[in-house]
Amino acid sequence: MALDTLSETKAFGGVQGVYSHASAATGTDMTFSVYLPPHHDGARLPVLWFLSGLTCTHANVTEKGEFRAACAQHGIAFIAPDTSPRGDDVPDAADEYDFGKGAGFYVDATCQPWAKHYRMRSYIEDELPSLVAEHFPLDMARQSICGHSMGGHGALTIALRNPDRFRSVSAFSPIVAPSQVPWGEKALGRYLGDDRSAWREYDAVALIEDGARHPHMLVDQGTADNFLAEQLQTSQLSIACAKAGMEPAIRMQEGYDHSYYFISTFMAEHVAWHASRINAA
Amino acid sequence: MALDTLSETKAFGGVQGVYSHASAATGTDMTFSVYLPPHHDGARLPVLWFLSGLTCTHANVTEKGEFRAACAQHGIAFIAPDTSPRGDDVPDAADEYDFGKGAGFYVDATCQPWAKHYRMRSYIEDELPSLVAEHFPLDMARQSICGHSMGGHGALTIALRNPDRFRSVSAFSPIVAPSQVPWGEKALGRYLGDDRSAWREYDAVALIEDGARHPHMLVDQGTADNFLAEQLQTSQLSIACAKAGMEPAIRMQEGYDHSYYFISTFMAEHVAWHASRINAA
Repeated sequence: MALDTLSETKAFGGVQGVYSHASAATGTDMTFSVYLPPHHDGARLPVLWFLSGLTCTHANVTEKGEFRAACAQHGIAFIAPDTSPRGDDVPDAADEYDFGKGAGFYVDATCQPWAKHYRMRSYIEDELPSLVAEHFPLDMARQSICGHSMGGHGALTIALRNPDRFRSVSAFSPIVAPSQVPWGEKALGRYLGDDRSAWREYDAVALIEDGARHPHMLVDQGTADNFLAEQLQTSQLSIACAKAGMEPAIRMQEGYDHSYYFISTFMAEHVAWHASRINAA
Repeated sequence: MALDTLSETKAFGGVQGVYSHASAATGTDMTFSVYLPPHHDGARLPVLWFLSGLTCTHANVTEKGEFRAACAQHGIAFIAPDTSPRGDDVPDAADEYDFGKGAGFYVDATCQPWAKHYRMRSYIEDELPSLVAEHFPLDMARQSICGHSMGGHGALTIALRNPDRFRSVSAFSPIVAPSQVPWGEKALGRYLGDDRSAWREYDAVALIEDGARHPHMLVDQGTADNFLAEQLQTSQLSIACAKAGMEPAIRMQEGYDHSYYFISTFMAEHVAWHASRINAA
């Protein structure tokens, strides 16, 4: 699979790159970023995936996430994909920030006109891992995943469906029960149709109710987040985990909002937390 | 002097704010950011100014500078002004990124039509310090200054003209001798006129040649910076300092470019370096 290098820039002793490629999963060109920390020739680096939220591309966390110092310290590669297919051929919902481009919700859409390109589950779970394993010095036996908001939903659901692939999962301000909140009901309904049973594999709380488990889960949620009460509802995750006998670290962070000022504050802690798991033997 | 709060967001235990006010110096509204680290009631915080480069506003370093962790650790307030007057009434040079709006060069212009609004020297040296001293819990007896590119020029020249006010000065990729490079010759010529003797107080190398000194100076310059040879010419600062008996730390950083990936890599070191000077008794 071919890869185009858009930029490679030295940062914290390593290289922050931005790349694009023709995706078979989405049928579009896709752009993503990879930070490689300083490493010896021949090294294979563990991988931390970061899935972004509504309206974002790879660029938001790449520019504002403040992850590079910690990734350089712990020797972890950091990969940030886009949040949807892009391009003039891709159907969009004009003037809707929470659906269409920038809002792929990490699903494989089954309803038209979305099903042709909106296949972010296959892209993130299958195609992009194969691509980066081919082009970068990564140890794909040591992966963890993190995300923010819609991307927190993505990280939680992907890790719950693939607990053996991801040693740990963390999220900032995640949508934990999309089937039960406006953002999720709108997106899952239009991408997947009215049959709500088809939504459950894209809903962290429903996956746990249906038996999925992950032993290493960390969530940070700001108490001043405008989306907490209506869209995020962190307590639903706490309740589902408690019923399932899971013991995630779910931390309510006093006074923090939904922005990158919040994410960057706790990013180094998340990287260190993942490092203690993916750098283990 | 009145101040409008545009936003205040919790970050790294402190508050990242963005503010605007009607500036008497520039005759326009001006926007700037202030990060206040966590502190006790009644505390007075030392101040680190950060002057930005061509095309920037306060927002670039505020979003991408990665200074907050270090400022929180060391208890330093961080203030980022804009780089020029703004607004429909302000004359501009259309399609020129290196002159006019976003390119104030930290001078008080004397030539029309620039002289009415382009008074960034008075704004940064006089008006904004008075404003922030009135509105924030700052210890104005403990100030240091830093900047990038055009803002590195600003930081060096302001500190050299005011060595008693600023305990230390640092710069990323500064323009050190604007009178001798294309960016500077264009800007100083149009803002100040053809008499080059009037440029010297806005030229770090010329100021040092004319007797200005600062005992605590740190410069980081990337060797892969596209602007190094033509516009920055760091070696001119090294030569001027050596002739003057000054011993600045001028560090050529292998493989780094002119971007915020470079700045953010070394920002924590700059903050710590300033802290050791402004947190001294």
